[in-house]
Amino acid sequence: MIKNIAIVGGTHGNEFTGIYLIKKLEAELAIDNLDITYLLANPKAYQAVKRYIDRDLNRSFKQSDLNNPELTGYENLRAKEINQQLGPKGNAKTDFIIDLHTSTAPMGINLVITKADPFHLKLADYVKSRLEGVTITWEEIEDHHFLMSVAERNILVEIGATPQGVLRQDVFDKTQQTVLEILEFINSYNQDSLPESSKELEVYKYFSVAYLPQNEKGEITGMIHQNIQDRDFQTLRKGEPIFKLFTGEEIVYQGDECTISFINEAAYYDEKKAFSMSKKELLKL
Amino acid sequence: MIKNIAIVGGTHGNEFTGIYLIKKLEAELAIDNLDITYLLANPKAYQAVKRYIDRDLNRSFKQSDLNNPELTGYENLRAKEINQQLGPKGNAKTDFIIDLHTSTAPMGINLVITKADPFHLKLADYVKSRLEGVTITWEEIEDHHFLMSVAERNILVEIGATPQGVLRQDVFDKTQQTVLEILEFINSYNQDSLPESSKELEVYKYFSVAYLPQNEKGEITGMIHQNIQDRDFQTLRKGEPIFKLFTGEEIVYQGDECTISFINEAAYYDEKKAFSMSKKELLKL
Repeated sequence: MIKNIAIVGGTHGNEFTGIYLIKKLEAELAIDNLDITYLLANPKAYQAVKRYIDRDLNRSFKQSDLNNPELTGYENLRAKEINQQLGPKGNAKTDFIIDLHTSTAPMGINLVITKADPFHLKLADYVKSRLEGVTITWEEIEDHHFLMSVAERNILVEIGATPQGVLRQDVFDKTQQTVLEILEFINSYNQDSLPESSKELEVYKYFSVAYLPQNEKGEITGMIHQNIQDRDFQTLRKGEPIFKLFTGEEIVYQGDECTISFINEAAYYDEKKAFSMSKKELLKL
Repeated sequence: MIKNIAIVGGTHGNEFTGIYLIKKLEAELAIDNLDITYLLANPKAYQAVKRYIDRDLNRSFKQSDLNNPELTGYENLRAKEINQQLGPKGNAKTDFIIDLHTSTAPMGINLVITKADPFHLKLADYVKSRLEGVTITWEEIEDHHFLMSVAERNILVEIGATPQGVLRQDVFDKTQQTVLEILEFINSYNQDSLPESSKELEVYKYFSVAYLPQNEKGEITGMIHQNIQDRDFQTLRKGEPIFKLFTGEEIVYQGDECTISFINEAAYYDEKKAFSMSKKELLKL
């Protein structure tokens, strides 16, 4: 039984869609039998129209970080507060967290799950079979750093493309539709009336990240090649150009065939990340 | 004769294209008879990946502001420095300034001129007839606040769409092509060998700006309607929906037919601007 739900916006302060959507839903949405908390996760970064103030809040929820009294930056303190409010992680008063994000890459509706158990796979399958353009990313790591890891069950919704610090109606509407489908799933799950799921589900299992070309001083020496720009969740093959250096030279991909996403994502420039790499897997449901 | 030219990037710190392009051009470009200064205008905002630190640098070059000793914010001081380096405004050592910008709106190549005299019209016409997707904005005001107003002759290049804090190859390449066409024009102008220009030039004369819907506390109560999203430099007619309120209600446009641009531009959210309004004019050359 899932009763206590948190819908979180603004884990990254410059991703406006979730921030305005939780205000809207809080004002108008009432669902029988569900107790929903709406949380603006990083109000200070939202005020500053920045992803974060001191450190990425969505990388701050490892148990070891939550328990570390020496971490006193704004996001570390905020993570501890949120862990008190919704958690504590491992024994949380919140049954389920939906964390709302946007991307500057045109990835449509990407659902990120951190566990490939029947609950999360059925949830992802439910949404995917009801909305257009849904992809599923599976990113499982020990003691996850995501905010939503405070609850045992959770899902991250990542929708793009939209610039940061902007509300686009198409992205806003898709985010709302996704949240409403997730809540419908929860209601059916609680009433033991889930429709039959698909036989198998296509998921993209994250395995690595590629970095922008840099010189020995860490300065960028080129950019994403237009060959891969806007090709999120498509296949990258060995020998394809991935970077265009400012000298004019092209750099080609040397690895095994994989799926790429978060291509040229603005939020990743602080770490000079170029794109994420994943492998497509078909999981039985 | 135009001899001393400044090519300026990073007047807005989160518009990366110009910043990286001036580095590239400085390293590889040498043009006979032209003395080119490359200027990163707002290095502190670039470091912070923000449009500005204290105040928009590209609104800080009114003569009255340059002469005001009480204005001591970062951008005001930087404006005074730049005015010393490239100016002084009104009697400048720099003959011509190209200022490189990007927009989060899909406006293609937009050239902004602040004077509709033969030189600037011929320049805009030259570029427009050589590249795809060029529009001309004419924004003439007394004692302009733009950085480029330090020189008597100038042009602002605004290319989109790109998110802030990102290098897109398509936008980067278009910006480089535009700069090279401008320099070619200058060379021909200096050698008195300009090709014949068009008979007339279509320009968009800026006249006003529309603001996002807000409540009495100044909070946004809706967003750009998808009816006008991504319709930069197209016609807006009376009765068309322009805003979608969070309540679901639509707000329709009440004014006279006009052309809209900078629609849902991320940089304009600090002032809650929704789009710019202009009138199409045909100017004789």
